[in-house]
Amino acid sequence: MSQPMRPHRVVVIGSGFGGLFAAKSLRRADVEVILVSRTNHHLFQPLLYQLATGILSEGEIASPTRMLVKDQANVTVQLGEVTSIDLADRTVTSVHRGHTTLIGYDSLIVSAGARQSYFGNDHFAEHAPGLKTIDDALELRGRILTAFDQAELTADPVEREKLLTFVVVGAGPTGVELAGQIAGLAHRTLVGAYQKFDTRDARILLLDAASDVLPRLGGDLGAEAAEALERIGVEIRLGTTVEDVDADGVTVKDGKGERHTIAATCKIWSAGVVASPLGEHLAQQSAAAVDSAGRIEVQPDLTIPGHPNVFVVGDMMTRDGLPSVAQLAIQSGRYAARQIAAEAKAATRGKRRPDRAPFRYRDKGSMAIISRFNAVARIGKIELHGWLAWMLWIAVHIVNVVGFRSRIAILLAWMWMLLGSWRGHLTVTDQQITARNVLHQVRQAETAAPPPPDGHPRAPQNPGDRCVTTTEGVTACSAQRMEYRRRTFRSQLNSSSGPNRSFPAV
Amino acid sequence: MSQPMRPHRVVVIGSGFGGLFAAKSLRRADVEVILVSRTNHHLFQPLLYQLATGILSEGEIASPTRMLVKDQANVTVQLGEVTSIDLADRTVTSVHRGHTTLIGYDSLIVSAGARQSYFGNDHFAEHAPGLKTIDDALELRGRILTAFDQAELTADPVEREKLLTFVVVGAGPTGVELAGQIAGLAHRTLVGAYQKFDTRDARILLLDAASDVLPRLGGDLGAEAAEALERIGVEIRLGTTVEDVDADGVTVKDGKGERHTIAATCKIWSAGVVASPLGEHLAQQSAAAVDSAGRIEVQPDLTIPGHPNVFVVGDMMTRDGLPSVAQLAIQSGRYAARQIAAEAKAATRGKRRPDRAPFRYRDKGSMAIISRFNAVARIGKIELHGWLAWMLWIAVHIVNVVGFRSRIAILLAWMWMLLGSWRGHLTVTDQQITARNVLHQVRQAETAAPPPPDGHPRAPQNPGDRCVTTTEGVTACSAQRMEYRRRTFRSQLNSSSGPNRSFPAV
Repeated sequence: MSQPMRPHRVVVIGSGFGGLFAAKSLRRADVEVILVSRTNHHLFQPLLYQLATGILSEGEIASPTRMLVKDQANVTVQLGEVTSIDLADRTVTSVHRGHTTLIGYDSLIVSAGARQSYFGNDHFAEHAPGLKTIDDALELRGRILTAFDQAELTADPVEREKLLTFVVVGAGPTGVELAGQIAGLAHRTLVGAYQKFDTRDARILLLDAASDVLPRLGGDLGAEAAEALERIGVEIRLGTTVEDVDADGVTVKDGKGERHTIAATCKIWSAGVVASPLGEHLAQQSAAAVDSAGRIEVQPDLTIPGHPNVFVVGDMMTRDGLPSVAQLAIQSGRYAARQIAAEAKAATRGKRRPDRAPFRYRDKGSMAIISRFNAVARIGKIELHGWLAWMLWIAVHIVNVVGFRSRIAILLAWMWMLLGSWRGHLTVTDQQITARNVLHQVRQAETAAPPPPDGHPRAPQNPGDRCVTTTEGVTACSAQRMEYRRRTFRSQLNSSSGPNRSFPAV
Repeated sequence: MSQPMRPHRVVVIGSGFGGLFAAKSLRRADVEVILVSRTNHHLFQPLLYQLATGILSEGEIASPTRMLVKDQANVTVQLGEVTSIDLADRTVTSVHRGHTTLIGYDSLIVSAGARQSYFGNDHFAEHAPGLKTIDDALELRGRILTAFDQAELTADPVEREKLLTFVVVGAGPTGVELAGQIAGLAHRTLVGAYQKFDTRDARILLLDAASDVLPRLGGDLGAEAAEALERIGVEIRLGTTVEDVDADGVTVKDGKGERHTIAATCKIWSAGVVASPLGEHLAQQSAAAVDSAGRIEVQPDLTIPGHPNVFVVGDMMTRDGLPSVAQLAIQSGRYAARQIAAEAKAATRGKRRPDRAPFRYRDKGSMAIISRFNAVARIGKIELHGWLAWMLWIAVHIVNVVGFRSRIAILLAWMWMLLGSWRGHLTVTDQQITARNVLHQVRQAETAAPPPPDGHPRAPQNPGDRCVTTTEGVTACSAQRMEYRRRTFRSQLNSSSGPNRSFPAV
């Protein structure tokens, strides 16, 4: 598989847990690793809700991937969104600010993760943002705090009640932890900061279609968590389906089939995820099947059928009902790296490819924090709740955060919050709140532009009109426009600004 | 001036140094204070460049104003952008997310600050952002780091040189400190993080039309600073005027009148400021004059002619060539508060208004940090440079940062950076880089929409077209559209969603 004179090349897609741990596990392997990522950072997603609720800062839960692998000589980090994978040619194409890069691979580890799913109701996203990215978290922080600020401005009690009602959809760990922290803001941090109302009058609702809170932890712990949440002021509504979300609230159908409307300005969606569209893209080129959440059904060795050199790890894959959690991403990323390292070693020694033992997931348990000194945790058959689970949660998260200095900073932030009620990161800006929806609408308007009647690619319009320059000379363009640009500037595509085919496909 | 039964009301506009210190200085006065602010936070602007260069986080240099005055019973914080001040009616109108609030005042302290000025070349802003807000700093951080990331992707040496050239326009404290920190990134923090080039090859240019670096510190210290900057790799070009800025670089005219073009992807503007348009707005209603930077020429007691109850403080005012620095804002804000407090006290005791001693600025000196262990400072006639000035800089800034916990966090961040070269806040997102320009273009497109031919107010168009919903039901609209909305929904304006005239004008 590998050619003489050049090392085996592993391309890793994604800088989340799966991608980062795969790249790091290859540090001693005689391979060249190229990690391609859309974002400049590795994000510690389990603490994203603390960014959204003012406890931690961006830098404390996310570091540039480049800095994390700086001392690993065989890794190159390449920024870009992967736009296509060619399984036949063994190439990956990515685009960063208009610059297209095409690279070949010997082995591929796809770990592009998952995004928020609205189960076919994408229009909910405008009013009920999810929590998957740094931008999401800062927007949520802004929406939560601005709701309180707006309540201070209105003289209308009905309007104020709407502004002080927070609806969290989805009672998994993210939903539970967010609802708990909004309660912490309303009942501790913000008390006394407003003159015209008591922040403790805020209503916090946690909705789920399921019959349990934290279903992965099992009914008993779920009931514990639900009770604890209710004690700190969170109303829980299970067996409740969301039928609509708009600017003014959510319409739900309860367990008895009755419809209600809950007036609420601030809505948060943490009800489901769907795998990166790269899953579907890979399935189209292979015999792989994709489940309803867009995840690829992988072989026992986490590869796709007919492509033993293409691994799919983390939230993008499914097998035997494995849970889509950080631990699965870490373990599956490491597993893929180990197979590749062993095979590269065998190849350099002229030995035959070793057999692959199937991937085995080691369940390290599951946990969620509810409030100060209170969490729920399940490790194997052991169930914990209260302060012991809370201590365990703190320990596990501090150990797993990347970097000694981030650990110190996070511990310090937690200490301040426990001693008093202080949150150091409650600053928000209007731009952080509004940018996502405006950028989305600009892209939508662009994409919705009808194709020209003659069927030829459209010429770019006045940039002030529908096509928007997003940064230094890079213009956000629809597929049609890209086609136009591609044809018009085809000659340039082979020059410096075009694809940089840095190594021939093998 | 004050009526029986209700306290004297002071409205403070702005949550910068002037506004915050004015409000805090009124804590023992028998007055009611309403602080109206566009942003939710007080920003410690002197450290904004450290947010832009990855040393500090948002929360460490900015805290919600509401939390800072939480324990001061006589202050209410009201979010909103002031859209008009009526000196005759003694009212202030502000708007927050479509909600208009009208409040009356007995005394007014206007401290709305200054914004970046491009001296009539506002189109430079697209390519050369300034550094006045949290959003600006995060965008700059993104632009600086992304330039390095893009340089890693290109195979073209000319393109790479352009990407690795950083131009800072304006050699005042902000420009000097930014240039020094970009050098710190290129020569320390980022070394070894890129495979295809050495970050130390980056060019950092600091341009100014003046003949000195840091002109306020005087020629000797300016020369010291210039030498120190050159030692750490910053090229300085004085007597150089910027004639144009575009996506690919800047066109300058040097001291000999010759034109050059500097190819550079990342440009930063710190060359000048202009006062808030509220200055011009006040001048139109009074006999006050406004200087070329939009600042009001105030009376000896910092009021505007004919309005002894209207103070203008901080960057919005000018008198006797006072420097527009943080200390002036703090001292002038406190001065205004003291006059109001003394007069309120006299009024409650039935005494006549005490005479006002004219405002005297106490120059506490000026300083700028160049690099690790090196700064320049002038205190009165004492000039310092090197490590002593650096220690002084650290001490002065730590003492002046608001809040004990922020001080600890900042000291810790500085310690890590001094011990190693670690910067804890290098995470960036695409949205942070692109949002400002896209939002600006959307607003421009909206404003540029021609008025309808029949002269009647326009009906709102398809929201996906030109009018953009910025957040929960609030639509960003042009003046014409606002007029339409106002007429259409006039009846609603007197209900809860309309102006909340919370107290009759006196």
